[in-house]
Amino acid sequence: MDMQKLKQEVLEANQALPHYGLVTFTWGNVSGIDRENNLVAIKPSGVGYEELTVDDIVVVNFEGEVVEGSLKPSSDTPTHIELYKHFPDIGGVVHTHSSWATSWAQAGRDLQALGTTHGDYYYGTIPCTRPMRPEEIKGEYEKDTGTVIIETFKERRIEPNQVPGVLVHSHAPFNWGKDPADALHNAVVLEEVAKMAVATYQINAGAPSMDQTLLDKHFLRKHGKNAYYGQK
Amino acid sequence: MDMQKLKQEVLEANQALPHYGLVTFTWGNVSGIDRENNLVAIKPSGVGYEELTVDDIVVVNFEGEVVEGSLKPSSDTPTHIELYKHFPDIGGVVHTHSSWATSWAQAGRDLQALGTTHGDYYYGTIPCTRPMRPEEIKGEYEKDTGTVIIETFKERRIEPNQVPGVLVHSHAPFNWGKDPADALHNAVVLEEVAKMAVATYQINAGAPSMDQTLLDKHFLRKHGKNAYYGQK
Amino acid sequence: MDMQKLKQEVLEANQALPHYGLVTFTWGNVSGIDRENNLVAIKPSGVGYEELTVDDIVVVNFEGEVVEGSLKPSSDTPTHIELYKHFPDIGGVVHTHSSWATSWAQAGRDLQALGTTHGDYYYGTIPCTRPMRPEEIKGEYEKDTGTVIIETFKERRIEPNQVPGVLVHSHAPFNWGKDPADALHNAVVLEEVAKMAVATYQINAGAPSMDQTLLDKHFLRKHGKNAYYGQK
Amino acid sequence: MDMQKLKQEVLEANQALPHYGLVTFTWGNVSGIDRENNLVAIKPSGVGYEELTVDDIVVVNFEGEVVEGSLKPSSDTPTHIELYKHFPDIGGVVHTHSSWATSWAQAGRDLQALGTTHGDYYYGTIPCTRPMRPEEIKGEYEKDTGTVIIETFKERRIEPNQVPGVLVHSHAPFNWGKDPADALHNAVVLEEVAKMAVATYQINAGAPSMDQTLLDKHFLRKHGKNAYYGQK
Repeated sequence: MDMQKLKQEVLEANQALPHYGLVTFTWGNVSGIDRENNLVAIKPSGVGYEELTVDDIVVVNFEGEVVEGSLKPSSDTPTHIELYKHFPDIGGVVHTHSSWATSWAQAGRDLQALGTTHGDYYYGTIPCTRPMRPEEIKGEYEKDTGTVIIETFKERRIEPNQVPGVLVHSHAPFNWGKDPADALHNAVVLEEVAKMAVATYQINAGAPSMDQTLLDKHFLRKHGKNAYYGQK
Repeated sequence: MDMQKLKQEVLEANQALPHYGLVTFTWGNVSGIDRENNLVAIKPSGVGYEELTVDDIVVVNFEGEVVEGSLKPSSDTPTHIELYKHFPDIGGVVHTHSSWATSWAQAGRDLQALGTTHGDYYYGTIPCTRPMRPEEIKGEYEKDTGTVIIETFKERRIEPNQVPGVLVHSHAPFNWGKDPADALHNAVVLEEVAKMAVATYQINAGAPSMDQTLLDKHFLRKHGKNAYYGQK
Repeated sequence: MDMQKLKQEVLEANQALPHYGLVTFTWGNVSGIDRENNLVAIKPSGVGYEELTVDDIVVVNFEGEVVEGSLKPSSDTPTHIELYKHFPDIGGVVHTHSSWATSWAQAGRDLQALGTTHGDYYYGTIPCTRPMRPEEIKGEYEKDTGTVIIETFKERRIEPNQVPGVLVHSHAPFNWGKDPADALHNAVVLEEVAKMAVATYQINAGAPSMDQTLLDKHFLRKHGKNAYYGQK
Repeated sequence: MDMQKLKQEVLEANQALPHYGLVTFTWGNVSGIDRENNLVAIKPSGVGYEELTVDDIVVVNFEGEVVEGSLKPSSDTPTHIELYKHFPDIGGVVHTHSSWATSWAQAGRDLQALGTTHGDYYYGTIPCTRPMRPEEIKGEYEKDTGTVIIETFKERRIEPNQVPGVLVHSHAPFNWGKDPADALHNAVVLEEVAKMAVATYQINAGAPSMDQTLLDKHFLRKHGKNAYYGQK
């Protein structure tokens, strides 16, 4: 894989975060992975999106060591690496503190599929992790943020390729996708469905999850071998 | 009817969707109809509004066959056609996943007329359809989305020319009008009244529907032979 | 008074409505009055704010007859005239369907003074009128919209110079001020305090009205002979 | 300290208030202090942010007397001075009526730490003051607004360097920081966490404060001698 091309993709997805209203200040980061070499290109820590250039993108290996670039990588880098290690099909990761998704994470609640907007991208409930334990927080906190995400998907038997996002308890969302742009796309969708879910329950506190047949229809019309949405 | 002119109108109404904040990504489509020839001009599937040109607009007949254009039409095309077949006076159809109207659809609730803003455009309750049945979803889903809309208006004796929009259960709104621009106009109004209805019930959970005399006054001052709003 | 100057002020205040996010389409109008001649300059009906020119502004007398301009005046003109007739100190009137204030009007609820933002501009509760009666709606509806506003202020002994706005039940707000720009200013404030009041009650359903001493302090520090805010 | 440089910083922070959506009209002001000479540079009262120039910034001493500039300082100047006098480490103060934070102030409620976004900047609950007493309101109101803030931090043993903001009961927020830009930064964060807290409680009315270990981790990873966020 061409690392310069990957860095460019990572740059553009990071720059798109403020465009989509997903970030305040520098509260979000996007990475992408070169699977052949297990190298992750990621935003540097605390640098503004407007000033970011392709040369600022930091490249780290699976040990978190910087192999290219002069800046410090995002403090969330160990979480990104953990996700890449355990979710082998993903090519990009996005972390933000977007308002609505973060509110669900703070509330400690799963985000049920309430309609086709959700079902077009997420094949069921977007889970909220358990709270992290004191020893996880005091230890390798950022790495263990990844561990608790992976545990959530494993224990609840959720397929990360079908539910490309999670709410980390008391924290904020992480999203992923086949590449950085796709992960960003899923982050935008999460924020929108999180917003609509709040309004939906305001209108009808007992609104049920959507019908399973309708969920199957919508998810599978856009994903998998029988998809028929778009120009493909 | 001049098909090139219709395609231009359809293009412009599609381009206006992001301007009015009604869409995320490509989650919305507008069509228009040539009633003389029963030909429908509609947005192609999955194409962004900024890149859309008049030549991208697809023309289909009532069987859903493409008669002009090289792209695939919107996956919602069969719903549009069904509406045109059964609502003979309408000239344009809009489908979006606009946040507030979609939240009402997800909540499965009718949108009552709560004030004159609603009454200026919709002569009473904007209905939410029943949930679609498994056989409808698994069968001709997009066509049957139209069927359930038509059933709703028929069974509840609602006149589609007086209530130019609907909430499809667990899905999102459809709107219509005398032409594509008018359908778009009604979609903007629906989103605004859907938003205000959420706030109205937050302020007063028991807010009643507006007075029927006031509704008559407002709808009829803008519609029908005694209208006196605007420069006409 | 120079009518051309008044028309220019009315034009600019109308053009500012979309800037402040108070209107969708043409759902709002501003007028100003020449008190020497009892002539009211007002927006024409159904004309967009971007296309509006100073020559489009219509001048009417207290009988509602057009004395200058070739367009039809706003359909709300009789309400404006009624307010000018009974509130002798006001020089401008604004009517909008701004989202938050309209939601309070739809809810049929008074807007209590909950904090200093409100108290800086409105000396107490912003009232919601009673519902209009069928005979008022069927009769001179727009004129009687003014009548019911005036009745509200009279019966509840509210001074219109100290509370420059009202919520018309099931309809929307009207605001006024010493000139068109001041009326517009008050409309912006109303929308903001209406929005914050919804959030305030979400946070604390039993939030009381603000302390009367604090209200006195804030209103009087900006209004009347002992005012000390600004550069005056 | 170079007073011209301080005035420039104060100017820029004031100009940024509308950029961050924190103000309507002129409802907000930023100041900065020259600690060597106890001179405070502050926005003039009632002047719009767009028209503001560096020469308009007013310099006052700790007695509130203007020592530089031809305009009247913000009416909130005595509050700023009181904060500088009692919080010796702060270099900038921001006051706004930003919608969400003001709604919490109107509700008279403390803002609990609900997640890491809050914990990254505020080391625990952002307090709401007690209501001001009639004698404080009628007396030196603006000075006593500062007094009640200081009392709140003292009595509740909150460290102002660790919780750089407060909600003044029935009024609005004040923020501070090491310089004007930092105070502004904290004001933006407060508005965002105030917004998310409303949504969080809508989703889960019983949402608890965040885990103390997690709060320690997040605050201390960005503040103090062991901080490791950003490029420092």
